[in-house]
Amino acid sequence: MTTLKTYAAAQRKRIDAALNRALPRAAVRPATLHEAMRYSIFAGGKRLRPILCLAAAEACGGDDKLALPAACAVECIHTYSLIHDDLPCMDDDDLRRGKPTNHKVYGDAVAVLAGDALLTVAFEIVATSEPARRYNAGDMVRDLAITAGSRHLVGGQVADMEGEGAGLGARELRFIHESKTAALLSCSIRLGAMSAGATPRKLAALSEFGQALGLAFQVIDDILDVTQTSAKLGKSAGKDEASDKATYPAIHGLLTRKAIAALKPFGKSAARLEQLASYLLDRDY
Amino acid sequence: MTTLKTYAAAQRKRIDAALNRALPRAAVRPATLHEAMRYSIFAGGKRLRPILCLAAAEACGGDDKLALPAACAVECIHTYSLIHDDLPCMDDDDLRRGKPTNHKVYGDAVAVLAGDALLTVAFEIVATSEPARRYNAGDMVRDLAITAGSRHLVGGQVADMEGEGAGLGARELRFIHESKTAALLSCSIRLGAMSAGATPRKLAALSEFGQALGLAFQVIDDILDVTQTSAKLGKSAGKDEASDKATYPAIHGLLTRKAIAALKPFGKSAARLEQLASYLLDRDY
Repeated sequence: MTTLKTYAAAQRKRIDAALNRALPRAAVRPATLHEAMRYSIFAGGKRLRPILCLAAAEACGGDDKLALPAACAVECIHTYSLIHDDLPCMDDDDLRRGKPTNHKVYGDAVAVLAGDALLTVAFEIVATSEPARRYNAGDMVRDLAITAGSRHLVGGQVADMEGEGAGLGARELRFIHESKTAALLSCSIRLGAMSAGATPRKLAALSEFGQALGLAFQVIDDILDVTQTSAKLGKSAGKDEASDKATYPAIHGLLTRKAIAALKPFGKSAARLEQLASYLLDRDY
Repeated sequence: MTTLKTYAAAQRKRIDAALNRALPRAAVRPATLHEAMRYSIFAGGKRLRPILCLAAAEACGGDDKLALPAACAVECIHTYSLIHDDLPCMDDDDLRRGKPTNHKVYGDAVAVLAGDALLTVAFEIVATSEPARRYNAGDMVRDLAITAGSRHLVGGQVADMEGEGAGLGARELRFIHESKTAALLSCSIRLGAMSAGATPRKLAALSEFGQALGLAFQVIDDILDVTQTSAKLGKSAGKDEASDKATYPAIHGLLTRKAIAALKPFGKSAARLEQLASYLLDRDY
């Protein structure tokens, strides 16, 4: 098996080529909009979600080429959510991955609309995909829409904004992280599995893997961000935060074991997913 | 046949009930977001697009109940586009149908996110629909996504904004109106037909009907708005505008005849669509 670095670089190249084909050219009218969409899509993302999507298809014994549309779609959703989160009326960020944010370059109005268009094109791309068997495009659209919608991705952003300055309990904090991070990571893995026509048992196992991976990933972020989070939540959160902090290593260990255990039945075909999980979960903290 | 007024009132009631079932309750977390979504959805819209969607299903001999999901979806898309268009960074409107706009009540951030969530739930609803035959949910999602995306609905808004103050040619103006109005009207009719399992010939005829209806409808708006439009476009547009104005009645007559002709093969089953078209096209100008 090639190293993770070589694999990820090769997959990134395929994903970027597929995204380039899936999005309207920058010259298509209105050009500003299509330029703005492409600006953020090709702003140097690591393509973590699409890479997981392709690896999940591979784990199910499918040609991961079938998962390329789903891989592009989850990246479009991820990018749209970053564009809207960065807006002045939300987190008001000027830089993203060291580059000016979309609204800094194209103005707030075009940034809102470029986000809208990326969200929309994600569904167009998935609706055009042809899963191997068992599932149809409608199943995948439904899963992606529930993940991206008001109960998960969008809902998490609202809860996050409402929590600013207020004292957030452990439960509320978990809702935000599950919604903003774990939901789309897990959905990326499920869509990859569905593209490959995974059996219901394999789909359920990968869904569990994705959920545990997403949460464990977020728990590490929580630990790394604990000082920032503390500042953000204000002093009233101190008690919750302290008790959360104490349980982090235990939760992380549990989730990591759960994620790895979920891959057992796949044997060697899940080697790549396991490698990706180790990379994501073995960060120092 | 009942009068249009009675029919429309009854359909509105069914559509509102279906929307109420399709959207998460206001109490679902995060409550602010679900309240904001419901605020704009139930702000007194005429439900023109969903009514056309149901009438198209009826014209194809289907139970129009099958078209209710599509009818809800097009209304969610329409409402999201109004919320985003009203934002301070776009048209900056304080009132919509006599009520405070979404961002006036919930703030800019929640308004952006409520729009995002309504756009997303539209695809969830369509993906969950079960067309009678011939088409699947994926076909309908694809049609809706193309209509709502960067080449039509979102693209039209960008072109509209870019045109403010600039001299717009007749061609550019037509792109804006086709994109912002005709595309979604026409798509509403197509989705209704697809829900009812329309034959390809009937679907093509209704697609032509929707396109002609949407354009004719817009042409009337152009005539009614001509003074406002003139002020908006600035003096440099005078020549284009004058030549446009002269050709309006001819174009309108042509489009109306085309729309009605497209319904011929349907006979009596399209009586309701014809009645709706007459209502929309017979406004005084």
